[in-house]
Amino acid sequence: MSKQIKVGIIGYGNLGKGVVASLKQSPDMDLVAIFTRRAPESLSINEPNVEVLHISDAEKYKDEIDVMILCGGSATDLPEQTPEFAKMFNTIDSFDTHAKIPEFFESVDAVAKQSGKTSIISVGWDPGLFSINRLMSEAILPVGETYSFWGKGVSQGHSDAIRRVEGVKNGVQYTIPIEESVEKVRRGENPVLTTADKHLRVCYVVAEEGADQAKIESDIKTMPNYFDEYKTEVNFITEEELKSNHSKLPHGGFVIHSGKTGEDNNTQIIEYSLKLDSNPEFTASVLVAYARAAYRLNKEGQTGAKTVYDVAPGYISPKSAADLRKELL
Amino acid sequence: MSKQIKVGIIGYGNLGKGVVASLKQSPDMDLVAIFTRRAPESLSINEPNVEVLHISDAEKYKDEIDVMILCGGSATDLPEQTPEFAKMFNTIDSFDTHAKIPEFFESVDAVAKQSGKTSIISVGWDPGLFSINRLMSEAILPVGETYSFWGKGVSQGHSDAIRRVEGVKNGVQYTIPIEESVEKVRRGENPVLTTADKHLRVCYVVAEEGADQAKIESDIKTMPNYFDEYKTEVNFITEEELKSNHSKLPHGGFVIHSGKTGEDNNTQIIEYSLKLDSNPEFTASVLVAYARAAYRLNKEGQTGAKTVYDVAPGYISPKSAADLRKELL
Repeated sequence: MSKQIKVGIIGYGNLGKGVVASLKQSPDMDLVAIFTRRAPESLSINEPNVEVLHISDAEKYKDEIDVMILCGGSATDLPEQTPEFAKMFNTIDSFDTHAKIPEFFESVDAVAKQSGKTSIISVGWDPGLFSINRLMSEAILPVGETYSFWGKGVSQGHSDAIRRVEGVKNGVQYTIPIEESVEKVRRGENPVLTTADKHLRVCYVVAEEGADQAKIESDIKTMPNYFDEYKTEVNFITEEELKSNHSKLPHGGFVIHSGKTGEDNNTQIIEYSLKLDSNPEFTASVLVAYARAAYRLNKEGQTGAKTVYDVAPGYISPKSAADLRKELL
Repeated sequence: MSKQIKVGIIGYGNLGKGVVASLKQSPDMDLVAIFTRRAPESLSINEPNVEVLHISDAEKYKDEIDVMILCGGSATDLPEQTPEFAKMFNTIDSFDTHAKIPEFFESVDAVAKQSGKTSIISVGWDPGLFSINRLMSEAILPVGETYSFWGKGVSQGHSDAIRRVEGVKNGVQYTIPIEESVEKVRRGENPVLTTADKHLRVCYVVAEEGADQAKIESDIKTMPNYFDEYKTEVNFITEEELKSNHSKLPHGGFVIHSGKTGEDNNTQIIEYSLKLDSNPEFTASVLVAYARAAYRLNKEGQTGAKTVYDVAPGYISPKSAADLRKELL
């Protein structure tokens, strides 16, 4: 039986692969096509019912695809792609440059309102699920503090930064929340935490032969924006060790809100945490659930740009409202 | 400056008191009146700007109160009160008899659609915040299992049950999640857990003078529905000990979802947890945040019965959508 919601994917990196896997678990969505900037035949995709096409062919699928899931990066892909594809499709993306979200939202909203499409932007876990928990915790316990911790996990941005250092052949960076700070927050102490108090940065570096390891270590530790404000640990390992021990992309983190209520100043702690073996597969699973919401919102005439803040929980589930009330409420 | 949303309270027990305290932390809501079944003058309420009135006077405030927060119990109060007050007011309640939610929803929906009011039912943390996390986790990671644990906390229902046992003068019951089971779930083992595997019941009992303690202990441990399926511990203490060590109403719990993604069967764990010094004050804070949502949904013409599944997160925050995107997303 053909499923109700027809989905397309733009971009076939780790996230796009995760979307393919997640759609297989979905009872009501079918993957129609993957669009890529590369030569389509160069992609090895073993999905007999899925077309693999060049991105320039996407327009032809305007009437066949209900929701396009954009799996490009936030730096250069999405600022261009989301407004472009929102002219033709309902879209989902994981735009995660927090500071630029307002401007991105406006640019997508204008286009999607015009085209009558629904674009849910900045979907994933942060921004995304963590954002929901920040908002809800603050709304419920307005007298309080919210703390976001990330890790233990691989930061792509910081790993890339290491690999640009002279003499570095390869490298991976883990962001690690500092347990002592997390525990203070969990105890309701509402501590004031500096950047360095919250996270530790641990690097595994493969140096080029004959490279000056002391200089590499110093170059990493003093790198502005990325490492200089943190306590950073640099470990030199072999390429083989890197491949066998550090090729997965785990991640996770916590949003902890500690609030006070009543005359006795009672402490109330809300914690949301993720422990992910695969960051891209999890993020993809969130995108797929919200693709369902975009499809439904659009059917109801709710067009324009949206964020996770605009989506009632019921829209992301394949179950009916009556079943949800009966089974899960 | 007078605040935008005018609120009334029906019922002044622990939950009603919590709502009074929570409204003081709210930037956009004002408490207008508290309605009680008791003689209004018998309530000691030290709020100079709040009227205390008999419940039969509520109707007169139809045009002055935007949202009525119903703070009665689920057994007999709410099944009667919510449909009655939904004729005149937008309402919020914490109806928590899970098995009867569908029928309760229907009865409220019919009335609220007729009157053009918005009634958000079954608000709190379970049902409520825990329900949202069950739904979202399952929608995002459909191949997986969701586990809800409650405690450590005082169960009112079980405490009441103890106090009905012959020879018992007073008593408190704590529900305690069994750490070993919680850890299995957190490790992604997806264990099959019986009722007895998940929670322990610990009772603190004050016996009447000369009562047969062995019989009390046995009567409690074998009580059907409440204790017979659990491992139950009964401790006898004095009335003084009960007052000084067990007069607070802490609670909390966890919703843990463990799912699998991708070809490698990666384990992804989502956990939501609450650690509450005061259960009624926290529940009240959730009701107040959703009162804001009921007001707004009604302004938009979204009438009838709703649950937390129908409410987008943005509706419960006093901040504008633009500020939320900028500050919290």
